Amino acid sequence: MDEHARPGWFTRLVSRRTVLATGTAGLAVPAALALGPVAPRHSAAAQSGVVRKITLYAEALPGNEYGYGLAPGRATIPGPTLEMYEGDTLEITLVNNTDRRMSIHPHGVDYSVDSDGSPLNASFNNPGETRTYTWRSREVAATEGRRLMPGTAGYWHYHDHAMGTDHGSLGIARGLYGALVVRRRGDILPDEQFTVVFNEMTVNNRVAPHTPLFEANLGQRVEWIAIGHGNQFHTFHLHAHRWADNRTGMLEGLTDPSRVVDTKDLNPGGSFGFQVLAGDGVGPGAWMYHCHVQSHSETGMSGIFLVRNADGSMPPGAQEAIDRFRGHDHGATSPVGAHAPHQHPPTR
Amino acid sequence: MDEHARPGWFTRLVSRRTVLATGTAGLAVPAALALGPVAPRHSAAAQSGVVRKITLYAEALPGNEYGYGLAPGRATIPGPTLEMYEGDTLEITLVNNTDRRMSIHPHGVDYSVDSDGSPLNASFNNPGETRTYTWRSREVAATEGRRLMPGTAGYWHYHDHAMGTDHGSLGIARGLYGALVVRRRGDILPDEQFTVVFNEMTVNNRVAPHTPLFEANLGQRVEWIAIGHGNQFHTFHLHAHRWADNRTGMLEGLTDPSRVVDTKDLNPGGSFGFQVLAGDGVGPGAWMYHCHVQSHSETGMSGIFLVRNADGSMPPGAQEAIDRFRGHDHGATSPVGAHAPHQHPPTR
Amino acid sequence: MDEHARPGWFTRLVSRRTVLATGTAGLAVPAALALGPVAPRHSAAAQSGVVRKITLYAEALPGNEYGYGLAPGRATIPGPTLEMYEGDTLEITLVNNTDRRMSIHPHGVDYSVDSDGSPLNASFNNPGETRTYTWRSREVAATEGRRLMPGTAGYWHYHDHAMGTDHGSLGIARGLYGALVVRRRGDILPDEQFTVVFNEMTVNNRVAPHTPLFEANLGQRVEWIAIGHGNQFHTFHLHAHRWADNRTGMLEGLTDPSRVVDTKDLNPGGSFGFQVLAGDGVGPGAWMYHCHVQSHSETGMSGIFLVRNADGSMPPGAQEAIDRFRGHDHGATSPVGAHAPHQHPPTR
Repeated sequence: MDEHARPGWFTRLVSRRTVLATGTAGLAVPAALALGPVAPRHSAAAQSGVVRKITLYAEALPGNEYGYGLAPGRATIPGPTLEMYEGDTLEITLVNNTDRRMSIHPHGVDYSVDSDGSPLNASFNNPGETRTYTWRSREVAATEGRRLMPGTAGYWHYHDHAMGTDHGSLGIARGLYGALVVRRRGDILPDEQFTVVFNEMTVNNRVAPHTPLFEANLGQRVEWIAIGHGNQFHTFHLHAHRWADNRTGMLEGLTDPSRVVDTKDLNPGGSFGFQVLAGDGVGPGAWMYHCHVQSHSETGMSGIFLVRNADGSMPPGAQEAIDRFRGHDHGATSPVGAHAPHQHPPTR
Repeated sequence: MDEHARPGWFTRLVSRRTVLATGTAGLAVPAALALGPVAPRHSAAAQSGVVRKITLYAEALPGNEYGYGLAPGRATIPGPTLEMYEGDTLEITLVNNTDRRMSIHPHGVDYSVDSDGSPLNASFNNPGETRTYTWRSREVAATEGRRLMPGTAGYWHYHDHAMGTDHGSLGIARGLYGALVVRRRGDILPDEQFTVVFNEMTVNNRVAPHTPLFEANLGQRVEWIAIGHGNQFHTFHLHAHRWADNRTGMLEGLTDPSRVVDTKDLNPGGSFGFQVLAGDGVGPGAWMYHCHVQSHSETGMSGIFLVRNADGSMPPGAQEAIDRFRGHDHGATSPVGAHAPHQHPPTR
Repeated sequence: MDEHARPGWFTRLVSRRTVLATGTAGLAVPAALALGPVAPRHSAAAQSGVVRKITLYAEALPGNEYGYGLAPGRATIPGPTLEMYEGDTLEITLVNNTDRRMSIHPHGVDYSVDSDGSPLNASFNNPGETRTYTWRSREVAATEGRRLMPGTAGYWHYHDHAMGTDHGSLGIARGLYGALVVRRRGDILPDEQFTVVFNEMTVNNRVAPHTPLFEANLGQRVEWIAIGHGNQFHTFHLHAHRWADNRTGMLEGLTDPSRVVDTKDLNPGGSFGFQVLAGDGVGPGAWMYHCHVQSHSETGMSGIFLVRNADGSMPPGAQEAIDRFRGHDHGATSPVGAHAPHQHPPTR
């Protein structure tokens, strides 16, 4: 399995190893996730208010990049996908193995000023320094009348906020970012999980044909987490699949007014997520995902979502499509480095 | 009647002609639409799963542009507005009468890889070639718990994905795009329908004062379909009218949380639609629509929504406003071509 | 109290003075708003259809800027925040004390062509001219089936549409803009109210560290009104607080499908608003707000939301954070003028 193309799985496997190492409860991803990929599952009725501890390592990567990882030598771009249920707390011990000041700043969750990750609040790691950041979450809360103050559930993200400048522009540009998912209890869990970061003019700091090749089998429930970074505006488009433009990507009922979309603005600092059933109603094949700004897709912001047959075999024409895509090498503009070994996963 | 300014009507009329020519059922637009423009109407309880066949012709147009049309010699920019009900299938026989490779790629609907319209999947028309593309649609489907996987209903669009490059950048830039509306059964049908495509720095490949002059009578239910293309970011603003930022533009009830807007981001690959009652609460007159990015409105991305009196007569001051607008000719930056004969419809 | 940093309070106080001066009812802000800032309050069951008259003065400001104000010599950037309840009418007598043509154009509300504020409709003030603009509002209205045509409630804005060009680009660039809030009866009123305008590469025509320092006490209900203007795309991000991406920023119930966000696109002509409880779940401190486009935050589009302790005292570390922020002076790129006296409010 290609770790880079499947950061979600990678995170879960490693985080369970982390669990054993630290003696804490690990990320709240039901073990069922590792057992079978076909049937949608509801999240277990986990206990509330669990505190989990993980250690993240910031490291330099080849090609002048940086990454976060759950173990030394395992940094990736994007970093591991972190997950919580509303009510949980995540204590992150960040080990800065780089020679620059850096930090971790989350979106969506609760944190005190000393876990802000910003130089404004003197919240960062100097080179070689270890520091703990605490992220909390919560459920919705009643307010006057029928209204509710929103809870923490969402498809969020985290990133450096201190490398190079007080805004983390250098750290973000070079790969210090990842996905953060906070679920409501009862939310449907996916079989596969992909993270797509439109960062400057790249996808996950790569350009076509070195962008991630995401894979799923026909009918699997696939969760996409889309994050924007950098200085450019973008629009994320996925061929042959659509989702409701709301919290889950699904409709809450027939009167849910949400617009259904297959293209959505994805700009710096923003994020969204949704679940689709791979190939549902359209069949297996090599489906494009890309930025729909024409010059961006032309210069490398595109990739392939490979929907295999239900039994995992290759559908007709898919290998030819992948070969065509790989012929589109943007050469010198393609950064290399940590991703290189994972660029061309052998098709099973 | 100005065909360019009213692509919706044009499409319907021509599509009915197409029906006669092919012996199939034609687009699912109830005949009532042709009878009277005043009272809102619900869509008929049409049978489900109808398969409709149409032929589209891609053609070169004067001024180095291209267009799609429902009959030879009738190509327009934007192309005809295509409509379906959820559950219907549209079989499009695309005749490529240009001397370039091109295709048709839809947003929002279901299609197999061979109808993808992308060179990635070898799905395109060579010069002179005819090829059939099949678009399917469906209703919402239950998933675990109370949630529903979204159906196909939406204000979508279609465009070339093969001319010049694998992403269709040349075809889109030169006019190969149009609107695609998929309705839920029961949706309210409009009296008038306008398509506004913010494509690069133009409206429907035109700049002011050659942008479409859209017309309706006071109180008519007008459907706007807004589509973004190209390389620029835009914000669509309509004076004196507003809509709910959701699937229909209307609220589903008093607890519908949708934000109400009169300006909305309209970026490449995105689309949305809504219905307003022309001049409701504000009266007849010449109302501006424009991109709210200041330099874009200044350089030609604006036009007029003319709301006539209920009896179709001109309201006071409207002709003067139109004359003022036409005095703002951006000259050499204004492309000419297929639209030219329709730029200055005589005001009734 | 810093008037510039608290335009909402400023407006209310001045508008009450305006009331006394003109003998009319003044803005529909319940007097309770002036009494105590802690407990959330519902809007009073005010009578419907009230007509209020105010006078706005457009004036030149130091530094080649312009502003709207509720009294001569009191112009600010942004102008006063205007508020209405659905059903109310606002009659604005605009006195143009500048030597240029200018106007006032609202978003979201109802107005006739002669109150459009656009040169297209000959609706503007010549230099020295006084002209009255009428803005109306209304509640939702039933349409076919269960659907409702949206009412006027929303976080809107107003701006010049005539200075320099027919689109008001000069007036907007130089400060002629402000917030307009239309509430539904029963909406929860805030304790504090902040207006953030991302105009070109500034916040309220200022760059860091001269951007507004917004202040509230822990637990106060704070209303943010965000408005976009100019030619750049932006993304508004607030640290340690989040809101539902819908009309109010709160959820209408557990099945409200709205996405919860802490970053939102804020592009020219657009606006949104939301309420948060200051420091709720995260504690007091100096929290950043900024554009998340990296180069924009780097060059001055950031500021501080100071959440004091519940008793109004300074929390630990906050003054140090403010001092750090003030050290980041972007010097020559910082415009000066009307705001200058308010840039550095003494911390209480």
